Amino acid sequence: MPLIVTGTVGIDTVHTPDGKAEEVLGGSCVYFAAAASFFTQVRMVAAAGEDFNADFHEILAKFPNVCTQGLEIRKGSKTFRWGGKYFDDWNQRETMFTELNVVEEHPPTAPEAYKDSKFVFLANSHPSVQHEMLKSLPERVFSVADTMNLWIDIALPELRKLLEDVDGLVLNDEEARMLTGRRHMVAAGRQIIETMGPMFVVIKKGEHGCILVHDQGVATLPAYPTEAVKDPTGAGDSFAGGMMGYLAAAHSKDMAVTLDSIQTALAHGTVIASYAVESFSLDRLASLTKDDVARRFNEFADMVRVGQPAAV
Amino acid sequence: MPLIVTGTVGIDTVHTPDGKAEEVLGGSCVYFAAAASFFTQVRMVAAAGEDFNADFHEILAKFPNVCTQGLEIRKGSKTFRWGGKYFDDWNQRETMFTELNVVEEHPPTAPEAYKDSKFVFLANSHPSVQHEMLKSLPERVFSVADTMNLWIDIALPELRKLLEDVDGLVLNDEEARMLTGRRHMVAAGRQIIETMGPMFVVIKKGEHGCILVHDQGVATLPAYPTEAVKDPTGAGDSFAGGMMGYLAAAHSKDMAVTLDSIQTALAHGTVIASYAVESFSLDRLASLTKDDVARRFNEFADMVRVGQPAAV
Repeated sequence: MPLIVTGTVGIDTVHTPDGKAEEVLGGSCVYFAAAASFFTQVRMVAAAGEDFNADFHEILAKFPNVCTQGLEIRKGSKTFRWGGKYFDDWNQRETMFTELNVVEEHPPTAPEAYKDSKFVFLANSHPSVQHEMLKSLPERVFSVADTMNLWIDIALPELRKLLEDVDGLVLNDEEARMLTGRRHMVAAGRQIIETMGPMFVVIKKGEHGCILVHDQGVATLPAYPTEAVKDPTGAGDSFAGGMMGYLAAAHSKDMAVTLDSIQTALAHGTVIASYAVESFSLDRLASLTKDDVARRFNEFADMVRVGQPAAV
Repeated sequence: MPLIVTGTVGIDTVHTPDGKAEEVLGGSCVYFAAAASFFTQVRMVAAAGEDFNADFHEILAKFPNVCTQGLEIRKGSKTFRWGGKYFDDWNQRETMFTELNVVEEHPPTAPEAYKDSKFVFLANSHPSVQHEMLKSLPERVFSVADTMNLWIDIALPELRKLLEDVDGLVLNDEEARMLTGRRHMVAAGRQIIETMGPMFVVIKKGEHGCILVHDQGVATLPAYPTEAVKDPTGAGDSFAGGMMGYLAAAHSKDMAVTLDSIQTALAHGTVIASYAVESFSLDRLASLTKDDVARRFNEFADMVRVGQPAAV
């Protein structure tokens, strides 16, 4: 089932306690698309500047399921740039700089060939931009949005309008607290689905996994306990990409996305994210195979198995 | 299979952002025993003082599977007392006071009737005291110890000696880092089982669940996402009690404790701990039924189900 994603293409600079990467490919749309491409064809809608060079194109070409027809390279513009630094505990990061560049210009639009997209992911950007993109896709059947604290802070009315029109919302625990004022994540998720529109909310907790609050029930998974974290950047977008890519592929005929299939999708998101953080930028995803994904999915399924209790 | 636990009986004072409890029943041995009693008979070895009054005895009597023959009430002594305060994020707590009292005297010993105990849990105390208790139980077949940062700091040689003789170690993530110098929990757990003696390590992450590193594999579970946390005190001991109680019951004939049965045990520990934190002291556990436990176990098993992936 055609999957479309809109978000940022970025040139990232990342410092971690163990190393650094300068001016490497990143951005929510890129991580999402690379992650989703292990399951299905994924259409990117994003804008970059003239500085988006041949090396970056070559990296994207390593993901044959990523369609870049909707990636606009704008003459005279510069690509979004972000610099971040992770501290010793790896859970806190500080933004070193943000250069919005092309993101401050008019938003990219979906090419005509993308208008039949059924599965839609709106990576984090201004909720009005997300909403316009959503409304430009008349054949959509399943749409999920990401957001961030900035928009909850400065564009809450627009975010609330967007939420009325999406099936799912993805956000982190701090953002869920901010949006609802609730301390417990299940209570926060329930408030969102009962009062704001979405049928489900996925709350990302980084290395601590995720919680799904769905109108049919609650689910929760730990993260895959990787020993090889090199750079957490893009983990959330890769997680969302794995989840949506799996759903789009699993519902290629039957489009009724159920709690069950979302649970299986969350495990796939978990697996893809665990690979994404094993390198800077897209390096690990670029060398990943479908067999790697299947192997770690099975390993993860074994790890979270609770078994059948003995009669006691 | 007879299960024995040694640890503290305490009189706790707890302040949380939502309320407080003054001089209520607590202590590692008490929480553990109450939790384990939903699965099997459990024998307490602990000491308390004259201030351990009839009200406290009455609370213990609400757990008919808890045998208190090994609970020494010492004339002229005072019970261990602890006061703790939780802050707004509920994950950090500050000790307001600790009065060791009877814990500074000679340690309690197992009554003759307990000498046939097969399953042994050594709740947190000085590793030499834990080791003496362990060696006094010649028929033990499966033993697990808890520990804390204090002992890693001031009694590491004794702790290392103890670890050579136990099957499993339970500790929290910060303690695992401290004991091994490893940042990643799987690496920390692996170092412990490869170089220190235990066959498995359970790393408790509080509201973020647990990781099991076993010489046959790795497992991980999130916490049950409860909406009703009232007091986190005793969560770790209740978790260990649920885990060990289930194992002792499940292995009443076949005593080969496998990775599989520990995984099912961890889920039971998770469930019991999630109930324990719904009240101050033992209030919630005292009203809990085996049906409640089975119901939440099934609910939790559904929450962490990853399903079978569709062919994609």
